[in-house]
Amino acid sequence: MVNYQERLGRTFFALVDPTRRAMLARLERSDGASISELARPFAIGLPAVLKHLDVLTEAGLIIRAKSGRTVTVRLRPQPMREAMDWLRRYERFWSNSLDRLTAYAESMEAEARKKGR
Amino acid sequence: MVNYQERLGRTFFALVDPTRRAMLARLERSDGASISELARPFAIGLPAVLKHLDVLTEAGLIIRAKSGRTVTVRLRPQPMREAMDWLRRYERFWSNSLDRLTAYAESMEAEARKKGR
Repeated sequence: MVNYQERLGRTFFALVDPTRRAMLARLERSDGASISELARPFAIGLPAVLKHLDVLTEAGLIIRAKSGRTVTVRLRPQPMREAMDWLRRYERFWSNSLDRLTAYAESMEAEARKKGR
Repeated sequence: MVNYQERLGRTFFALVDPTRRAMLARLERSDGASISELARPFAIGLPAVLKHLDVLTEAGLIIRAKSGRTVTVRLRPQPMREAMDWLRRYERFWSNSLDRLTAYAESMEAEARKKGR
């Protein structure tokens, strides 16, 4: 069993690389892709592609299913939920700034209305 | 100027390490801490602490302000917003499963009601 902190670390590590993020985004648009379909947009060799897929598998973000000679890669986004929940506690910082911005805009508007009278 | 993909990569990289995540969580609870306050919970030396702070600074997640001989570290959570927005598009996967679960619970309830008649 991998613990929470380790899972979180693996998820964030998997998301560091832009190629891996692009692969996840590809699987988000249409789930289930062959390895060659996943590799197509990138100017990297098959070994590098397989290495990225290993990191994503290790993080539990994809599953590979073999049927005959074809390997189908599927998205398993659940670990991202924990990552998002971790980030969520910082949300109040930007929603607070938005609140302050709204309050400022409203005070400016009130000011303008007073002057307009 | 660092572009979007690079910023995202730096943010996720900063979040890979549990010590760095703990430092951010500490700053989330009460913003503004000295380096020794931040270092206190960890069994690591000052050079390792400073290295972690460098990674966090590089990712734009903290700012260090010097006043006399004291360095105050402050949280700058904005880059996490982009990271969260990136993750958000996967949210439909778990909210969908929740929808399915709700639908299932409702159908079970309807079934039970029918039988109860």
